[in-house]
Amino acid sequence: MTATSGLPARGRFITFEGGEGGGKSTQSRRLAQALGAAGVAVVETREPGGSARAELIRAFILSGQAKPMGAATETFLFNAARYDHIATRIAPALVAGQWVLCDRFADSTRVYQAVAGGADEALVRGLERLVVGPARPDLTIILDLPAAVGLARAGARRGGGESPDRFEAESVATHERIRAGFLAIAREEPERCVVIAADRDPDIVADDVRRVVRDRLGAAI
Amino acid sequence: MTATSGLPARGRFITFEGGEGGGKSTQSRRLAQALGAAGVAVVETREPGGSARAELIRAFILSGQAKPMGAATETFLFNAARYDHIATRIAPALVAGQWVLCDRFADSTRVYQAVAGGADEALVRGLERLVVGPARPDLTIILDLPAAVGLARAGARRGGGESPDRFEAESVATHERIRAGFLAIAREEPERCVVIAADRDPDIVADDVRRVVRDRLGAAI
Repeated sequence: MTATSGLPARGRFITFEGGEGGGKSTQSRRLAQALGAAGVAVVETREPGGSARAELIRAFILSGQAKPMGAATETFLFNAARYDHIATRIAPALVAGQWVLCDRFADSTRVYQAVAGGADEALVRGLERLVVGPARPDLTIILDLPAAVGLARAGARRGGGESPDRFEAESVATHERIRAGFLAIAREEPERCVVIAADRDPDIVADDVRRVVRDRLGAAI
Repeated sequence: MTATSGLPARGRFITFEGGEGGGKSTQSRRLAQALGAAGVAVVETREPGGSARAELIRAFILSGQAKPMGAATETFLFNAARYDHIATRIAPALVAGQWVLCDRFADSTRVYQAVAGGADEALVRGLERLVVGPARPDLTIILDLPAAVGLARAGARRGGGESPDRFEAESVATHERIRAGFLAIAREEPERCVVIAADRDPDIVADDVRRVVRDRLGAAI
């Protein structure tokens, strides 16, 4: 897992984080388009999932089958998926000089499993240190909006026919704790994290995202 | 996970390790009887499993459903099960002054997942440090015998009607690598591990186990 360290050609690693309905996948795609237009080689990916084995683990977790195994076990499983995702996709891309944009990453585990799920904070941080290692994001964009707004958006996106997944099905109060959890990470690591208000027109949010990536990482976008 | 450290009343933690068919559960039960007769409060347990959540994880792994997720994921799952087992059963018993006898523990993960399964050694050791912490065994008894003998015994115990589980189904060559893996651990940590030849009459093996526990841990058995 040391493949990404100490190499001058290393690409940049940007993660999108935040609660439901904040437009993470939309904004990731728009940033990828802007970077691509500027000649930057970009890999778009997501968690949980992002590699073949990690997608199997994602399906198992989101089906709810892991929930009776406890929040700690879900934390181990998210880290198992992340371990494979980093080894097979993120680290090789960074080493090749590509920029990696990831929809959710380790901050989601801190927030969903420790803050909302009750998994032990020391376990969550210990697993993160072990698994993420040098594949720590260069920049994390936290798309922030009130939980009720985000859940309504996520529900509309899903449509009436589908059931909410394992995490969407939690209460609004839990989702407010999740929002507060992401904001706490931003306060704790201001050198890595930027909070962007997501309860606005997606074009305006995309402008803000580009500006942050330009200012923080020197991209010509 | 620091509940077992620094307490004068802490009980002793003994694990039984080795390949298939070495008599781990039989010898654990016989040692428990000997300790009980000497007035020692004993908890008998096993891995994978040993607590309600860990048994769920055990069933998932042994069914083979986790195998397509890869050896690294199985390693995370075994550690998830161990984390719950330690927190809910092993550590509380040790703190209460009881002796804990466990049929398989962290050495089995080192051997089955790293040596035989190909999971990264650094990952396996890192997870062990994080999860086991101060619940490190005081004594590990490795019941050693040729792989072919052990597999034949395990097959006879199971009977003709049942299929071998996820790990019994591996080849004899793999089981010889497993045997060598346990012997390597014994050489690496002689202060914790004792190898006992298990290809002998169970009464003689039980005599040897009692002698080791008497010599190493001062039990009056």
